[in-house]
Amino acid sequence: MEMNFKQMQAFLQEHFPQGAQYGELLDLGEGTSKMRLPVDDQHLRPGGTVSGPAMMGLADVAIYAALLSKIGPVPLAVTTNLNINFLRKPVADADIIAEAKMLKVGKRLGVGEVSILSDGDEDPVAHATMTYSIPVPEKR
Amino acid sequence: MEMNFKQMQAFLQEHFPQGAQYGELLDLGEGTSKMRLPVDDQHLRPGGTVSGPAMMGLADVAIYAALLSKIGPVPLAVTTNLNINFLRKPVADADIIAEAKMLKVGKRLGVGEVSILSDGDEDPVAHATMTYSIPVPEKR
Amino acid sequence: MEMNFKQMQAFLQEHFPQGAQYGELLDLGEGTSKMRLPVDDQHLRPGGTVSGPAMMGLADVAIYAALLSKIGPVPLAVTTNLNINFLRKPVADADIIAEAKMLKVGKRLGVGEVSILSDGDEDPVAHATMTYSIPVPEKR
Amino acid sequence: MEMNFKQMQAFLQEHFPQGAQYGELLDLGEGTSKMRLPVDDQHLRPGGTVSGPAMMGLADVAIYAALLSKIGPVPLAVTTNLNINFLRKPVADADIIAEAKMLKVGKRLGVGEVSILSDGDEDPVAHATMTYSIPVPEKR
Repeated sequence: MEMNFKQMQAFLQEHFPQGAQYGELLDLGEGTSKMRLPVDDQHLRPGGTVSGPAMMGLADVAIYAALLSKIGPVPLAVTTNLNINFLRKPVADADIIAEAKMLKVGKRLGVGEVSILSDGDEDPVAHATMTYSIPVPEKR
Repeated sequence: MEMNFKQMQAFLQEHFPQGAQYGELLDLGEGTSKMRLPVDDQHLRPGGTVSGPAMMGLADVAIYAALLSKIGPVPLAVTTNLNINFLRKPVADADIIAEAKMLKVGKRLGVGEVSILSDGDEDPVAHATMTYSIPVPEKR
Repeated sequence: MEMNFKQMQAFLQEHFPQGAQYGELLDLGEGTSKMRLPVDDQHLRPGGTVSGPAMMGLADVAIYAALLSKIGPVPLAVTTNLNINFLRKPVADADIIAEAKMLKVGKRLGVGEVSILSDGDEDPVAHATMTYSIPVPEKR
Repeated sequence: MEMNFKQMQAFLQEHFPQGAQYGELLDLGEGTSKMRLPVDDQHLRPGGTVSGPAMMGLADVAIYAALLSKIGPVPLAVTTNLNINFLRKPVADADIIAEAKMLKVGKRLGVGEVSILSDGDEDPVAHATMTYSIPVPEKR
């Protein structure tokens, strides 16, 4: 692995100053990550369930962490495509968990998938796939 | 049209109490809508550009308004799929504009597309397609 | 399960008369299926690799079988959305395997994911998610 | 434009020897194309409508032509992502028309959208967005 758990935690805190809003790292593997989004009024829709954009934000960061575990700290990798299916209504007032896994890490593109769950529940509330474009290192 | 501009404005304000965060309605047609997301610190990434989740949130509401212009005020319509391509870096400190158009409005599903632009610029920064599931009216 | 392996085989043969072109059923579980597309000149691109549309066709049928294992023989279920990421070049002259799994089977929508592999290789050549619309049974 | 109509026609015929199966070029603009898929038994599903994979194949080639109109004859550009929404049942026994437009043509990625229609009908039967990865020219 190109980055360990502590390095990733520090990297995410540095690059996402709005941090808590984007979730906390629970686990990091070779091309995988697990993150939690604590329930918070700003993420809620009427009815107490987490909003779609909040889930998409968490999915995005979880795949980013899974990608960087393989390629190291590349701040300029950018999302080029996200496809998300919303499957079930999230459990009210429950934190949201994202489990991400890279399907491919090439020189120029990384593709990953992520399942989003309500904490404590088994059935996914959403599933997303995402593509990151990896900047080509400049020659010196 | 099942809802006019003023009715839609009132409906969005009622159902999105976090409102400003989701954007303001600029225009409404038969199956179309135009919305603006004012630049705001909470939407920004380092570098002054609008974040991905903020764009996705705006895209979602813009399609929702375009859908409701055809089917009337159905608060329980839910997004089932969103696919978004991020095309260019948004212009720093510029508001974000969404132009949405329904491709299909059936009895059970509505599918729309939306272009996201930096205010004052012609080239889209993102393009999304989205599916809404429309609840079946209960028989009495 | 609403259909067993033999029932599914018979159902697919009946509804896909062009059959071989769409693949053969290898395995069927509760909401899962495995199918093979034998290499055939009509599926090949220059270079001996299987074409994109051939992979999409196989993905479609594999999710369909996984869905029907849960809801029984519903010939009118139709694909409403397909999102596919092409990850690697398929191995030349190798059969293509699809492993499908439903993420959700509701009353009106079924959502599944499918990994496409070259036979004998571990890394997926493509990954797709798909939504099927399930017709509402008519009241009598 | 990097290629005119005649050059594109010749290029497609050379690179898609199964040609007719992939459609004929009707029009080519700066980042746009229009193609027709003649109805043919091999594309039909029971009921006389064109199959999903046949539409996806046509969508793919139409975007490819739109992309090459901007970057010239690059045979190694490959599809990395396709997202398609199926909107309506195609008209039975009608040819299928694809109208493609590039949303972005960068150095490494091209993103386009395409509407699929039954010939003679106004409402789209499908809409797709697609990403092509453009190979980096080798330095000499």
